[in-house]
Amino acid sequence: MQITCSRNLLLENIQIVSKAVSSRSTLAILECVLLSAYEDSFKMTANDLEIAVETGDIAADVKESGSVALDAKLFFEIVRKLPDAQVLIRSDENNVTVIKCQKAQFKILGMPGEEFPALPEVEKTKYASIKANELKNMVKRTVFAVSADDSKPVLTGELIEINKGELNIVAVDGYRVALCQAHTSGDGVEDAYVVIPAKTLSEICRILPSEDDLEVKLWFTKNHALAETGGPVVVSRLLEGDFIKYKQLFTEGYNTKALVDRMTFLMCVERASLIASREIKKNPVKIKIDEGVMSVSSFTEIGDFYDEIDIRSDGPGIEISFNPRFIIDALKTIDDENVALRFTTPLSPCVITGDEDLNVKHLILPLRFNG
Amino acid sequence: MQITCSRNLLLENIQIVSKAVSSRSTLAILECVLLSAYEDSFKMTANDLEIAVETGDIAADVKESGSVALDAKLFFEIVRKLPDAQVLIRSDENNVTVIKCQKAQFKILGMPGEEFPALPEVEKTKYASIKANELKNMVKRTVFAVSADDSKPVLTGELIEINKGELNIVAVDGYRVALCQAHTSGDGVEDAYVVIPAKTLSEICRILPSEDDLEVKLWFTKNHALAETGGPVVVSRLLEGDFIKYKQLFTEGYNTKALVDRMTFLMCVERASLIASREIKKNPVKIKIDEGVMSVSSFTEIGDFYDEIDIRSDGPGIEISFNPRFIIDALKTIDDENVALRFTTPLSPCVITGDEDLNVKHLILPLRFNG
Repeated sequence: MQITCSRNLLLENIQIVSKAVSSRSTLAILECVLLSAYEDSFKMTANDLEIAVETGDIAADVKESGSVALDAKLFFEIVRKLPDAQVLIRSDENNVTVIKCQKAQFKILGMPGEEFPALPEVEKTKYASIKANELKNMVKRTVFAVSADDSKPVLTGELIEINKGELNIVAVDGYRVALCQAHTSGDGVEDAYVVIPAKTLSEICRILPSEDDLEVKLWFTKNHALAETGGPVVVSRLLEGDFIKYKQLFTEGYNTKALVDRMTFLMCVERASLIASREIKKNPVKIKIDEGVMSVSSFTEIGDFYDEIDIRSDGPGIEISFNPRFIIDALKTIDDENVALRFTTPLSPCVITGDEDLNVKHLILPLRFNG
Repeated sequence: MQITCSRNLLLENIQIVSKAVSSRSTLAILECVLLSAYEDSFKMTANDLEIAVETGDIAADVKESGSVALDAKLFFEIVRKLPDAQVLIRSDENNVTVIKCQKAQFKILGMPGEEFPALPEVEKTKYASIKANELKNMVKRTVFAVSADDSKPVLTGELIEINKGELNIVAVDGYRVALCQAHTSGDGVEDAYVVIPAKTLSEICRILPSEDDLEVKLWFTKNHALAETGGPVVVSRLLEGDFIKYKQLFTEGYNTKALVDRMTFLMCVERASLIASREIKKNPVKIKIDEGVMSVSSFTEIGDFYDEIDIRSDGPGIEISFNPRFIIDALKTIDDENVALRFTTPLSPCVITGDEDLNVKHLILPLRFNG
């Protein structure tokens, strides 16, 4: 293989594939990046078997077709330290690779390109389409609520559910549900119900460009999801197992509704969490709603906290306790100035939404308050 | 104790003392910050027994004199999360402390202020004075060269040597010397020869304000150094032991001198270090100087590197090998466009200075090159 390519273009594409490189694999080839040159097309690929990323065509002068797998960390560092000029990359039949830029010349040993694991095959028949920025935003508003507990692997991912053009992204960790809804379009898109690991979903969002109006196409097979925007292609493994039937958890009825200034409430619960932070289960934050006033308090071995906020409320007063972390996470995903809290009983979940924007919904289970 | 103080002023002063708080001490009191209020003066103090920091007077309304020691991390977090308004801090005879701001109220348990270790006594007779920014700059240009090896503790600090108004700051790790020189003035300043731990010296520099022309006064006793600028006061423990007699290492004579563009040389050695990075001692970077050309190369199990730079040189050609890290560290401290390298033999140290600025000098021992 022999190509010439600008150093800045190499660096840009390295940043796209870098997160799909395995960092501590038992297979040396997974710590590599694949460089492949065919006719006028040059690409880089990384694949840690969870997520695979292939760049789009990179403008390069291909002198000799072929491929080589290079230690990704070393190759990235070399490119990073090169001056902004044309870079020659040439590898021989033994995968000895020369990287030359101006007078600086590196010679490193690569591995055969053929040994690099190919991108999983995804048959491209029907896809769903959504704005890349909207997808990113949906993931950001929900992904923190996936389970950190590996004992039920399917809950460490996010559910992507497509039903008659309606796209739901859902994360559930057993104590809370984060749900975000949007519309999708596509070429005869079929309904889908797949779970993507949270880590790779976050990577997909990082890799997708942030241009306005850019559409991302999503393709699904039994085992994989593929996302592309015309440039890089990302393929993620799917998680197997039964996802929690989240819809039946969101009941329509409620007894008490409170409208609260979002930032005031957020700062208040953050303060409370300083006192409640150790042993959350025993020492939650107590919220009391009573005719236009919400009090937030916490009493633990660390100390006491008490604060009051003026609110608008409907329905009977209520006293209910929560893990403050869950409230904080939810409030941070809402853009509206005011948030709506809907309560049924002190032992039933609370639903948090924006005042007007109902596309994102959080359901949080209360904790029993021992005091 | 009872005071009222603005939240932003509290936060500002917390940032000054925070780095002197012990993070994992066996003594709970060392993880505290001392709040002390006397008449119209309110101060905060932190002391981990290596370094002690006392703020200047903080503008506060003192209702009741007294002192209390509060868990620093918790107190800092509480203040950080409070709104920008007046904060009331009140502690009773049992050190139960109320922190109140608008409607938010915390109650936490403190420890008796009397149990907090007092600032070491430093008799203020004669001091040396230097611009704070100059002191910071001198430390930044040398402190990386202190020894990381605890077996000779005195070398983990920097020597502060004052001799007839001349101030030298010196770091030595056994393989290199970094020396920075400046003038000092002061009220009958005596000669001094003290070693300050690198960590606390860096902290002193962080705490000193960055205002132009601000003078810092340095006072020394047998066991402590004190730095003050009129605001906060920092006291550091000194290190005991015999510092290396560094002066005799800087010989005046040399055989070969090279003038090199600093950034070109720096980038070149950084590239070489990618190949030389594992097992530095066996695989150093080789520098060859020969009539206006310097070549930099490295051959290791990782790969080969070769680069060339045009230079101006005097004297015979030379081939000499170094740990590239030491060259990189030295080059980063020099501001001149060109650096001067002075060599005697392939087995003698190299001296690196600026082309014109001779206030900072680096001496680096070569490595034997096996190849």
